[in-house]
Amino acid sequence: MPKNRLEAFSDGIFAFAATLLILNLAVSGHPLGEQLLGIWPSYAAYAVSFITIGIIWTNHHMVMHQLAHVDRFFLMVNVLFLMFIAFIPFPTRLLALNLQSEGAQAAAITYGITLTTTAVLFNVLWRYAAHDRRLLRHDAEQKVVDGIGRSYLLGPVMYLSATLIALLSPIASATAYLAIGAFYVLESSIFGRRP
Amino acid sequence: MPKNRLEAFSDGIFAFAATLLILNLAVSGHPLGEQLLGIWPSYAAYAVSFITIGIIWTNHHMVMHQLAHVDRFFLMVNVLFLMFIAFIPFPTRLLALNLQSEGAQAAAITYGITLTTTAVLFNVLWRYAAHDRRLLRHDAEQKVVDGIGRSYLLGPVMYLSATLIALLSPIASATAYLAIGAFYVLESSIFGRRP
Amino acid sequence: MPKNRLEAFSDGIFAFAATLLILNLAVSGHPLGEQLLGIWPSYAAYAVSFITIGIIWTNHHMVMHQLAHVDRFFLMVNVLFLMFIAFIPFPTRLLALNLQSEGAQAAAITYGITLTTTAVLFNVLWRYAAHDRRLLRHDAEQKVVDGIGRSYLLGPVMYLSATLIALLSPIASATAYLAIGAFYVLESSIFGRRP
Amino acid sequence: MPKNRLEAFSDGIFAFAATLLILNLAVSGHPLGEQLLGIWPSYAAYAVSFITIGIIWTNHHMVMHQLAHVDRFFLMVNVLFLMFIAFIPFPTRLLALNLQSEGAQAAAITYGITLTTTAVLFNVLWRYAAHDRRLLRHDAEQKVVDGIGRSYLLGPVMYLSATLIALLSPIASATAYLAIGAFYVLESSIFGRRP
Repeated sequence: MPKNRLEAFSDGIFAFAATLLILNLAVSGHPLGEQLLGIWPSYAAYAVSFITIGIIWTNHHMVMHQLAHVDRFFLMVNVLFLMFIAFIPFPTRLLALNLQSEGAQAAAITYGITLTTTAVLFNVLWRYAAHDRRLLRHDAEQKVVDGIGRSYLLGPVMYLSATLIALLSPIASATAYLAIGAFYVLESSIFGRRP
Repeated sequence: MPKNRLEAFSDGIFAFAATLLILNLAVSGHPLGEQLLGIWPSYAAYAVSFITIGIIWTNHHMVMHQLAHVDRFFLMVNVLFLMFIAFIPFPTRLLALNLQSEGAQAAAITYGITLTTTAVLFNVLWRYAAHDRRLLRHDAEQKVVDGIGRSYLLGPVMYLSATLIALLSPIASATAYLAIGAFYVLESSIFGRRP
Repeated sequence: MPKNRLEAFSDGIFAFAATLLILNLAVSGHPLGEQLLGIWPSYAAYAVSFITIGIIWTNHHMVMHQLAHVDRFFLMVNVLFLMFIAFIPFPTRLLALNLQSEGAQAAAITYGITLTTTAVLFNVLWRYAAHDRRLLRHDAEQKVVDGIGRSYLLGPVMYLSATLIALLSPIASATAYLAIGAFYVLESSIFGRRP
Repeated sequence: MPKNRLEAFSDGIFAFAATLLILNLAVSGHPLGEQLLGIWPSYAAYAVSFITIGIIWTNHHMVMHQLAHVDRFFLMVNVLFLMFIAFIPFPTRLLALNLQSEGAQAAAITYGITLTTTAVLFNVLWRYAAHDRRLLRHDAEQKVVDGIGRSYLLGPVMYLSATLIALLSPIASATAYLAIGAFYVLESSIFGRRP
């Protein structure tokens, strides 16, 4: 089974999930200028989730680049994975609207569970494909394959930690989600340039 | 007429219909934690519809893989088929919001009619393409073609049965929709692995 | 300038505009069963607009198939054309919600102006590409090219007529939009099969 | 890293952001005909933003056409750039709903900041790719490359000017956004034709 339509379907869901985030932004009442400044948690949540989806898309891109083909099991895990990608706009909205209210903890935990599960499923996807080089291209270097496997383990650990932080402080948890995104952006900015 | 743009258009609608499902999730009132637990039918409905769309997409993928080209009649049936795929978010919302109220029966029937019609149109699509090998690739194996035709007959039968169950019990009907999705996921998990 | 990304962008807008139509369906109040039957104009409007977008997509597909490349002027007219495609969900909603009220005439006229303009822009697109075979493939047969040009003239005439009918009777106008869609579906069903 | 999936993801976000603009159009109250005429700022805002996204898409298309490959840094800047593209529906809505009220200035400034930032990020994207011909195709002509670099500088200057005009007159600023779009459309109409 060729992989190009899987990429098209996945790219579609990544792109729509990211774009749908904008529907979470809304103002009501006036004066408009004050309202627009007051919804800063909405901008922050939009930026963090958009960049997070962008980073996961970049990594999905790299996984697919190592594969020769896919099978039905891979397709099915990919559907479950995309189900959590498409879910991200919902906890993003919760976090944006409740960051400064008593619902902050529930929102931060929901956000964290979503991202942790996404990261776990991404690891399942990669490990299934890479186990015994099941779906890999013949020319995929084993060193690169092992390196990808190790670096992807970081995701679930970081997101689970940030979720647990929400039990103590929702604001600290939200800051941790922001920091994880910033970490990945900076990692790419510094290490991702062509020399 | 080449088939690549048909795939791009179809993949767009599959991906977008799946992603739009998230707009069905909403909470109002508080405390937020309780609200988030209380809308479990929305999560279940989201998961069942997302996975169902993912499975149908996988099957559409496989049908297209067997075709050499498409004609205008096939395009037109495909548009009707996609019209029902794009319709799925509406009965999903009905089911999520009414599963525990008196509207459950109407919602479960609407959901079932949508999925049954989708499955019927999918069979029309395949049968039109496979009849006398009209649109098939020259190297499509007749054994595989016959196998696909038989397995796709299961869809309309299962969804029609689940729809009729709604006349007796909406909850049992909703459980049947869940079971059909789980059946396809498990079928892929067990039989879909590369040995 | 190659044409594949133009196709991807156009297919995306066709697919999203069609899928967004589902957001026009909503029920409120109860009993749910009665509500679901009462919103039949919404189903009809959804079906007519979805099929209309599908038909226009099919025709756009065929135009692009005749082209060797595109230029900036073509890109720009295509953007204007897509702007009206993406506009279709709005008059569809107007028609669905007002078909049985005093707003029916304004809704039917808005719907008609949108579709007429879309059809006119589609003709501009084709005529610009085909004039002196400006953007055509070398192997595009002049007979086919002339045939396409003639058949596309029908669209603006039919939609303008249906728009003018709205001045007399909005219901007759809505029926005409339905009839135009049905005409294209039947035309494809009868003439579009591979012999 | 190949560039085709970057194009698919980007095209998805461009197309989706443009299509989501339609959700900003709404009427309430009656008579419907008067309402539809009264929301003319919504039509104007829809058209200006749709065409602006279309123009930026065309330019993105041309940048990608000059590239041989992309790296992670380019991917990351592209994600930030797309984050602002996907943001456009929000200030478009603000401008449409507040053009004739006291919120006009805040709306026009928000719209301008969004478009100016988008234009700046687009320049960063191009300059990073073109610097020392880092990501360029071997056959990309240096003259064309330099010409692109110069012409793209115009965007941030024009949008920043229009944003500053909003401090004096929101209406003049909105007219400037319209004029910038019209300028690009006319530029393409006159200079973009194949001779």
